[in-house]
Amino acid sequence: MTDDEKFMAEALAQAQKSYDEGGLPIGAVLVEDGKVIARGHNQRVQKGDPTAHGEMDCIRAAGRRARYASTTLYTTLSPCMMCAGTVVQFGIPRVVVGEAKNFHGNEAFLKENGVEVTRLDDPACTELMARFIREKPAVWDEDIAGNDP
Amino acid sequence: MTDDEKFMAEALAQAQKSYDEGGLPIGAVLVEDGKVIARGHNQRVQKGDPTAHGEMDCIRAAGRRARYASTTLYTTLSPCMMCAGTVVQFGIPRVVVGEAKNFHGNEAFLKENGVEVTRLDDPACTELMARFIREKPAVWDEDIAGNDP
Repeated sequence: MTDDEKFMAEALAQAQKSYDEGGLPIGAVLVEDGKVIARGHNQRVQKGDPTAHGEMDCIRAAGRRARYASTTLYTTLSPCMMCAGTVVQFGIPRVVVGEAKNFHGNEAFLKENGVEVTRLDDPACTELMARFIREKPAVWDEDIAGNDP
Repeated sequence: MTDDEKFMAEALAQAQKSYDEGGLPIGAVLVEDGKVIARGHNQRVQKGDPTAHGEMDCIRAAGRRARYASTTLYTTLSPCMMCAGTVVQFGIPRVVVGEAKNFHGNEAFLKENGVEVTRLDDPACTELMARFIREKPAVWDEDIAGNDP
C-alpha cells in the first residue's frame, strides 16, 4: 500500500463515519510531514451547515495557521468549486482525490492554479458515494446545489 | 440611500461587530425578496476557524437550502477564492462588494462564471479594513495565507 492509499483509507474512514451518522459520505484528511494533522467529513446533515463539505471541515479542524505549503489534502471525492477555491486561496500545493465518477469536480481548475492533483480512482470511495446518491438523491443534489461542472 | 447601500450598511455593521471583538472586520449579509435572511462576519480570531470568512459565516448562518437563485450576497470586502468559489458552486447570482482596495479579490472569476458583481467603493468599508491591516498585519496576512490575486 502506497502512502497515498494509506491516507486515502483514513479519508474514507471519515466518509464512512459520516455515512453511519446519516450524513454525506465524503471525508478528508490533511497531511504534513507524513502525518495526519486533521480529519473531517461532510457535516451538512449532522450540523445543518452547508459550508461544511469534507475538505472544509478538515481544514477547519486543522485550526489557524499562516501557510499550508507543506500540506497535502486527501479527499474521497473530487472537490467542488468551494473546496477547490479554498485549496487555491490557502495555497495547499497538492490534492489527492479518491474518485471523480460521482462528481466531476474541479481538477482542471486546481491544475490551472498550480496545484498538483493525483486521482486514485478508488473503487471503495466510488461505491460508498454511489450508494448514498441512490439512497438520498435530494440530499446530494442539495449539497452541490445541483451544480456539477 | 439605495437598497444596495442599505444592505451594505448591514454588512458593515457585521464587520464593525467583528472589529469590536478583536477580529477581522469583514461582514456579509444574504438578502432574499428584499429582506436580510442571514448575517455573518469573519470568525478566524473569535472561533479559531480559518474557513469562517465573512461570506462563509453568513452562508453557514443561512442554513440548509436547495438553491440560492433568489439571493444576493453583500460583502464588505472583495471575495477571496474560497468565498468566490462558494458563490459559484451554490449558484448565488449576484454579489455586491463594499470595496476592493484592501484586497483585489476575484470579481473577474465571478463574472466569468455568470455572477453579476456590483462594487460600491464604499469609503467606510475601506477605512475600517485599512485600519485593521495597519493594526494587525500578521492576522490579515494569515487570513488570506498571503495570497491576493
